[in-house]
Amino acid sequence: MSDILLRADADGITTLTLNDPGTLNSLSDAMLAALRDQLSDISEGSSRVVVLRAAGRAFCAGHNLREMQDMRQHEDGGAAAFGDLFDRCSAVMAAIQTLPQPVIARVHGLATAAGCQLVATCDMAIASQDAEFGVNGVDIGLFCSTPMVALTRNVGRKRAFEMLSTGAFLTAPEAVAAGLINRAVPQSALDDAVAAIARKVAEKLSTAVRIGKGVFHAQAELPVEAAYHLTRDAMVANLADDDTAEGIQAFLEKRAPRWTQ
Amino acid sequence: MSDILLRADADGITTLTLNDPGTLNSLSDAMLAALRDQLSDISEGSSRVVVLRAAGRAFCAGHNLREMQDMRQHEDGGAAAFGDLFDRCSAVMAAIQTLPQPVIARVHGLATAAGCQLVATCDMAIASQDAEFGVNGVDIGLFCSTPMVALTRNVGRKRAFEMLSTGAFLTAPEAVAAGLINRAVPQSALDDAVAAIARKVAEKLSTAVRIGKGVFHAQAELPVEAAYHLTRDAMVANLADDDTAEGIQAFLEKRAPRWTQ
Amino acid sequence: MSDILLRADADGITTLTLNDPGTLNSLSDAMLAALRDQLSDISEGSSRVVVLRAAGRAFCAGHNLREMQDMRQHEDGGAAAFGDLFDRCSAVMAAIQTLPQPVIARVHGLATAAGCQLVATCDMAIASQDAEFGVNGVDIGLFCSTPMVALTRNVGRKRAFEMLSTGAFLTAPEAVAAGLINRAVPQSALDDAVAAIARKVAEKLSTAVRIGKGVFHAQAELPVEAAYHLTRDAMVANLADDDTAEGIQAFLEKRAPRWTQ
Repeated sequence: MSDILLRADADGITTLTLNDPGTLNSLSDAMLAALRDQLSDISEGSSRVVVLRAAGRAFCAGHNLREMQDMRQHEDGGAAAFGDLFDRCSAVMAAIQTLPQPVIARVHGLATAAGCQLVATCDMAIASQDAEFGVNGVDIGLFCSTPMVALTRNVGRKRAFEMLSTGAFLTAPEAVAAGLINRAVPQSALDDAVAAIARKVAEKLSTAVRIGKGVFHAQAELPVEAAYHLTRDAMVANLADDDTAEGIQAFLEKRAPRWTQ
Repeated sequence: MSDILLRADADGITTLTLNDPGTLNSLSDAMLAALRDQLSDISEGSSRVVVLRAAGRAFCAGHNLREMQDMRQHEDGGAAAFGDLFDRCSAVMAAIQTLPQPVIARVHGLATAAGCQLVATCDMAIASQDAEFGVNGVDIGLFCSTPMVALTRNVGRKRAFEMLSTGAFLTAPEAVAAGLINRAVPQSALDDAVAAIARKVAEKLSTAVRIGKGVFHAQAELPVEAAYHLTRDAMVANLADDDTAEGIQAFLEKRAPRWTQ
Repeated sequence: MSDILLRADADGITTLTLNDPGTLNSLSDAMLAALRDQLSDISEGSSRVVVLRAAGRAFCAGHNLREMQDMRQHEDGGAAAFGDLFDRCSAVMAAIQTLPQPVIARVHGLATAAGCQLVATCDMAIASQDAEFGVNGVDIGLFCSTPMVALTRNVGRKRAFEMLSTGAFLTAPEAVAAGLINRAVPQSALDDAVAAIARKVAEKLSTAVRIGKGVFHAQAELPVEAAYHLTRDAMVANLADDDTAEGIQAFLEKRAPRWTQ
């Protein structure tokens, strides 16, 4: 697999490492393609949970600006290439939310622009206390319009607008309070904190987690009645699993479940 | 009325008490039917506000797992019965939100799975400081997919996903910070706190409260323009009430209103 | 221009001052018309950011109740006039959110009913620490149904319902925690805090800010896939600007951009 995106699998936990520290792990064409391919591969595999982390001093600083400037040489000034780029980026974001497995962002250093969008898009996020979060494209004349989609589905409107229009950053504790991440821990405790939550998810019944995640983001976008229809079907499908029957029976009999998965 | 759901009416305040402590007030077939019937009755009556509380050591621990396991004996393995169960449960949740009167949850002890959904569904919730909130069905292999609908309409996505996928509980103070409940008070102060807020609502003009609640949840599900159309009509209907005319006039004349309701 | 709405323009910052302190800056017919006209004018002008402030001891106490009582003299009891009033008010709220320029509310004293709706509608809000926020129309028999539309797009459901049904106020620090405003500062520091954030926005590339704000509220109302389509187009439009090309190039060359706007 690509060197710019490392993958390790152990104990049901797949770890993806953004590995292009020279560009602060920018979402270059190659990185987006590698993420797309790996997410597709993971979706068909037996992983139970995914950790998304990054090498170097930043988590991810967003799009690859050099590649974008090169697109301006096209006959149309880059318009078609830019549209295609954002479509590919949005497709990766969608692939994270439609992936059957939960995705946990392990954030250190900077998470800016589409890098912040990546954090907002993951199902959960744990950051080191010195991490910083920004959608500050406006500082170079490019408002973070696509990142705002993910941001405003985590963070309230007033604060999101301030980040977007002033370029203001959130510290990790502020990001917790704002709802962008689950918690902030000292850098020295970050790997343990992420491993602990990943293990907790990996220990659950895989079918249940996949069915639940499969409707989580979708129902949030629907009117409440449609959301209940969708999740009712998810519950019925979940209950049809033999291991779920065993899980409930074990609970009623006050014993540990004997699961096959 | 059913012994598993007690009702008391006093001073415009209807108190419903989940009274099946042996099952931690599970939402059994009988409990769901009792709630449906009482909510229907209340909707046509003169109550001004409803308090939903529970007997025993827990508020509500969700669905009745013994009844659900019994459904597995059906020819289809229970699929039809499960679908019907979640439809009946969702109908009770909808009945709370479409009830003309505000519903205040008085929460002590555990509120888990569909019990946590019940808290999320009520218009307001006051809890004792030692109450705990969870959507931890995943621990027994059944992801809380229907409870997530109500949960994610109160609590941010990152925190909701963690609760759902890891089984993590919120303490009452954490539930306040997360937006799941209005506030947490010492157990010894819980009844007074709930009574105070119920009385405050009961003292308002009943027509105004009913009209306002009638559009509260509905408008939140609509695009903003449609939401304004709906609430504009609510305002016009509210203003057509003679008591509202008197309320405004009294305010302009700096005197107490003489209301007929 | 109208004396009840003062306008000042300096350094790309347009300041609108609600100037009807005798009615606590009520949203009277004249005030709504003045806001409509000024917002329309600003939308076609070169302002980069708008500050909305108020004269006297309150920010805004909502609709003009005397004018509303007079409408009751109409043959239909005022129904048509009330409907028209709320349509005009909602149109002003929509004009704030569709205005190309960000609007910052500078709040002191009371912001109640439609005055609180105004704060919730602005893109950002800074308040003095002694400001208070309420949607307490229920106290005079008129539930704040239209203000709830803006309120619930900033503040969680449980807290919003309590404010609406009990008339409870938020202090400025509570309003920060609830997401209704960006921050609270001592009254003596309010003008400086507002000026600082206004200047920060005014210094950004105007095209970028206009394009970004142009999709901010709209995308928040859309399903995520539609939101990404809308914002993708915004990004492409933003990138077509020569100043954006220069902004990105300057960043890559680690120098300050030379912008024409």
